Amino acid sequence: MTLGPPGSDVLAARHARVRGALEASGLDGLIVTTPANIRYLANHIGTAGTLLVTRTDIQLLVDFRYKEAVVSRQASAAACPGLTVRDVPDSYDEALVDATMAWQGKALGIEAGHLTVARQQWLIRTWESRGANITVRSTERFIERFRAVKDDAEITVLRQAAQRLTAVAKQAFDAVRPGTTEREVAAVIETALRRAGYERPAFDTIVASGPNSALPHYRAGDRTLHRSDLVVLDFGGVLDGYCSDLTRTVSVGQPSPEAVRLHRAVRDAQAAAIEAVKPGMTTTDVDAAARQVLVAHGLGEAFGHGTGHGLGLDVHEDPRVSKPRSDVPPVRLERGMVFTIEPGAYLPGFGGVRIEDDVLVTETGCEVLTSVPRDLRGCE
Amino acid sequence: MTLGPPGSDVLAARHARVRGALEASGLDGLIVTTPANIRYLANHIGTAGTLLVTRTDIQLLVDFRYKEAVVSRQASAAACPGLTVRDVPDSYDEALVDATMAWQGKALGIEAGHLTVARQQWLIRTWESRGANITVRSTERFIERFRAVKDDAEITVLRQAAQRLTAVAKQAFDAVRPGTTEREVAAVIETALRRAGYERPAFDTIVASGPNSALPHYRAGDRTLHRSDLVVLDFGGVLDGYCSDLTRTVSVGQPSPEAVRLHRAVRDAQAAAIEAVKPGMTTTDVDAAARQVLVAHGLGEAFGHGTGHGLGLDVHEDPRVSKPRSDVPPVRLERGMVFTIEPGAYLPGFGGVRIEDDVLVTETGCEVLTSVPRDLRGCE
Repeated sequence: MTLGPPGSDVLAARHARVRGALEASGLDGLIVTTPANIRYLANHIGTAGTLLVTRTDIQLLVDFRYKEAVVSRQASAAACPGLTVRDVPDSYDEALVDATMAWQGKALGIEAGHLTVARQQWLIRTWESRGANITVRSTERFIERFRAVKDDAEITVLRQAAQRLTAVAKQAFDAVRPGTTEREVAAVIETALRRAGYERPAFDTIVASGPNSALPHYRAGDRTLHRSDLVVLDFGGVLDGYCSDLTRTVSVGQPSPEAVRLHRAVRDAQAAAIEAVKPGMTTTDVDAAARQVLVAHGLGEAFGHGTGHGLGLDVHEDPRVSKPRSDVPPVRLERGMVFTIEPGAYLPGFGGVRIEDDVLVTETGCEVLTSVPRDLRGCE
Repeated sequence: MTLGPPGSDVLAARHARVRGALEASGLDGLIVTTPANIRYLANHIGTAGTLLVTRTDIQLLVDFRYKEAVVSRQASAAACPGLTVRDVPDSYDEALVDATMAWQGKALGIEAGHLTVARQQWLIRTWESRGANITVRSTERFIERFRAVKDDAEITVLRQAAQRLTAVAKQAFDAVRPGTTEREVAAVIETALRRAGYERPAFDTIVASGPNSALPHYRAGDRTLHRSDLVVLDFGGVLDGYCSDLTRTVSVGQPSPEAVRLHRAVRDAQAAAIEAVKPGMTTTDVDAAARQVLVAHGLGEAFGHGTGHGLGLDVHEDPRVSKPRSDVPPVRLERGMVFTIEPGAYLPGFGGVRIEDDVLVTETGCEVLTSVPRDLRGCE
């Protein structure tokens, strides 16, 4: 049913890239605290765990709960090469200080985008009190920038994860009819996700009907579906840790002319953005392609979010596909990047439309990984 | 179906407590970035949002996606009293710097347990570059310590959230039989959670069978259930934002004598811990009560995790019920605290047992909020 974790050779190649980057940035090691980064480098799955990657070795700190799983994985083809496993009897950060006492005079990076101020303050204070001479340097996106470009093992899983949404979408469409509630449709979708072999939903399933469909961040409530409602269905599943994400907007029965108009504009915007995806273009180019179409339809104000986000071990990761923002620098697209394309248009009081697919950047353009018809279906 | 968000009067009482604490700690305001804390103080639900609470006012910074929802809530009985809403056109932290420029010469707290090193560094750098004279002070558990003691509105919801698990457990027990898979049982549980009116599962449902039941952090996989397997079922739902959490361990058909022995020990340990809950006792007292029983059964080593965790807007929150740890100071129990009691014992290769209920600290002891029989049921 599932494809299994990447093999030791895949992890070894990832370690080599990270060690190259450590050397290039003058760091002796990196303290990895972000769960998805730990999984990416060591196949360790858990909400807890700390990884210490240096130019020469790699240590995983885990507590009792994960010990059994780590030991059995290290005896498998998915073993993390060169891994030392250290027990965490009590506090993770205390165990981390113990593990780093051998790195006197060295410079260690922390993941500043994940480590909290409180944890950093505690580490620095504790190193000082124990006479450790360790230089701490903030890093950002140190592992994430590698994760943004998927290797072959990841592409295989992501392709599967996207494909399996086709069956789920079919069941979702069948569940949409007058008289049912948003929550009932969400339950059908989540059962279908499990049946399709996903380990869990990738995020809270969205079933937003009628005026709720104009709220881009609505989830699913007690509202009953009525004839000619627009219904935004946004869902995804996690397969072997990798996320898929799809949105379709349907109508309950015959759509109104206004709904048809709105849907067509968003569909054209999405097509333009997909067309714009190829190596060398930037994320802001892709966003602009969708945005221009909506502006031309007089819907510029109605499209208030970004065009997409990277997909991988996290459901929102690099690259972010948005207009130029001070906190999100444009990223040049590379072969192997996987992200969503999901423009929308929202008219308060009336309703909204969003259409979302997952794409993989190829040598010459992109491969659309999801395959579900995009028409404004009338469900009943 | 749902109970609705707390009213303005409840929020006003929370604000008054927080403002008292600001004054007591010499802070002029607090920058609240933790989503559950923002919801607690302002009824704002979302993954994004920043709240600035000062001694005199309260400002919510939100982007386009949430605007509609905030405006309609502010026109309802659940309006946040005194709230100013500020648009975030681009970056949240840029909007935060704009909002704080009026606080020259003041001391603002940050939530050091949530804010990342990268965000803090950016804020400090940006304030400096704009000539702002703002003193930043780290705070920890500033709002969380209030959240640990539930008010009446919260207790009503938590009681409901726990009660509705009874129907879900019944369906889970019915789904356990030889030949089914862990994932199928998990799907039944999650559908039952939706049907019971929960907005979503409170965490990834755990169905751990046979040897997998010895892995305290296993979730649900493709394993087929066999006769005399132990099966740990750990699930919960979110109702109006509040979490419930229950674990029962069952047997597939007739349990083995070893399973019966293990189950009895854990059940006795749980009973002892529940017995120990009352105002004035500490979290470590409660943990010790469970631990002593397991040690007496020769299962001290088999119980490697803490006895419980607070329940509320987060599924793991204060107070933590564990043995004394450098990073988890003991907490004296107070009326209104709600937490889980979930000792377990895990024998690698054989299997494990965990039994978990949710309790509310009362004037004289505790009320067990969940009500599902605790016997080692043989399901088939």
